[in-house]
Amino acid sequence: MGTALARAWPAAGHPLTVWNRSPSRAAVLAAEGSNVEDSAAAAVAVSPLVVVCLLDDASVGEALTGIDLAGRDLVNLTTSTPAQARARAEWARAHGARYLDGGIMAVPPMIGVPEAGGYVFYSGSQEVFKRHEETLGVPARTTYVGQDEGFAALHDVALLSAMYGMFAGAAHAFALIRKEDIDPASLAPLLADWLVAMAPAVHQTADQLRSGDYTKGVVSNLAMQVAGTPSFLSTAEQQGVSPELLTPYFELMRRRLAEGSGEEDLTGVIDLLLR
Amino acid sequence: MGTALARAWPAAGHPLTVWNRSPSRAAVLAAEGSNVEDSAAAAVAVSPLVVVCLLDDASVGEALTGIDLAGRDLVNLTTSTPAQARARAEWARAHGARYLDGGIMAVPPMIGVPEAGGYVFYSGSQEVFKRHEETLGVPARTTYVGQDEGFAALHDVALLSAMYGMFAGAAHAFALIRKEDIDPASLAPLLADWLVAMAPAVHQTADQLRSGDYTKGVVSNLAMQVAGTPSFLSTAEQQGVSPELLTPYFELMRRRLAEGSGEEDLTGVIDLLLR
Repeated sequence: MGTALARAWPAAGHPLTVWNRSPSRAAVLAAEGSNVEDSAAAAVAVSPLVVVCLLDDASVGEALTGIDLAGRDLVNLTTSTPAQARARAEWARAHGARYLDGGIMAVPPMIGVPEAGGYVFYSGSQEVFKRHEETLGVPARTTYVGQDEGFAALHDVALLSAMYGMFAGAAHAFALIRKEDIDPASLAPLLADWLVAMAPAVHQTADQLRSGDYTKGVVSNLAMQVAGTPSFLSTAEQQGVSPELLTPYFELMRRRLAEGSGEEDLTGVIDLLLR
Repeated sequence: MGTALARAWPAAGHPLTVWNRSPSRAAVLAAEGSNVEDSAAAAVAVSPLVVVCLLDDASVGEALTGIDLAGRDLVNLTTSTPAQARARAEWARAHGARYLDGGIMAVPPMIGVPEAGGYVFYSGSQEVFKRHEETLGVPARTTYVGQDEGFAALHDVALLSAMYGMFAGAAHAFALIRKEDIDPASLAPLLADWLVAMAPAVHQTADQLRSGDYTKGVVSNLAMQVAGTPSFLSTAEQQGVSPELLTPYFELMRRRLAEGSGEEDLTGVIDLLLR
């Protein structure tokens, strides 16, 4: 990811100084017009805007330890948890830097290719974001989500968590047809179209969460949906598929129904997840 | 659902005879131009094409018991498992009827509104499907998925299972921001767009399943993705959210990785679901 980011700026005519632990990676970037420094300290020393993208938060601590960050605008695109981002922001401020955290919603091939749809969540110093908005927008679109430094990471994790849920559901769907004479490539477009059609249901969920009224706009209520779950489980059983990716959600639906919420939408499940 | 279907045909100028266990529901349909019979037998007697949509497969058995089905084209839109659909087809043939099974990918408000995007999977007698294709297309678009009578139900369950997975993921995402000063209505469009952008990943999954090569076209391999899972779990922990909707998928990812498949995509999880 670091390499993909580092290639985007010179390609767009932005001067860049890079440092990488692996000199071979830096050499490729030098060939493409970047100024390469052989220490992180030297790279930071010549850069008012410092963008960091490393393996994890601990690597950031190691790479920047002992370096003079006073007066720098530090943008950290390393994958972090919200708590790590907040702590790193504290640490940066203690070292005299302004801090902006980022969560990258893209894989490396999407960087520098705006039409690929990738983007980066930013949170923390709005001043830093505003000052460098155009520069930060070079590798991928930018979405600023608030001054709380943890919010970029939180949005990142929230969206990726939802994606894993969708992938889990799709895995179950493909498993169901695995032993049948059905081509996965004929199921795929039906599956993709259906997921795309159903994704906007999250707007109704948000509306219900805001109002606190989970019965608002309900089409298939919880009682009806719980009544349908045995068909899903017996179909899995018939097809020799473990239901383990479906049962936790169904179990929460049943628990919510047992609380007397049969007229609601599925939104009450969210409350059951909170401790 | 039965009422929504029954209203679509007369609205489009197709003559319809209806029977419903609740006379009040039938009365509404009579007012809209349907011929109402007071027994299922009488309705079937005057209808070469019989469309059934009831609570469940057992209700179909009860409603049609003792009725002469000889020479009828029986289209069963009742929610069933694949095994129930196949058994119902056997039963229908034994009673002299031709059988077509259907799985409705829509909620009642989408019936008769083609632009709402709902449709019905059909499987079983291709002859029945071809003969009535135009009529069957009146309430919602039609998608024929094969002669195996269980395939409509199987496609239906597969797509809805995937949808529940996506909803589970979205529930986790909303839970993560629940205690923060983040408006669910500002998360929702980000979440919907991200899910829509990621849904086409199922095409690559299908391609990998067909070829048997799960490393084909991999961008983030299993080893990298498993390495990222602790961030998801600690973020959930920090936000006071139970990880129960994420852990089963992560657990399968870990199991697949432990089998030495770190270079693969996530597709190998599907094999682990099969018994």
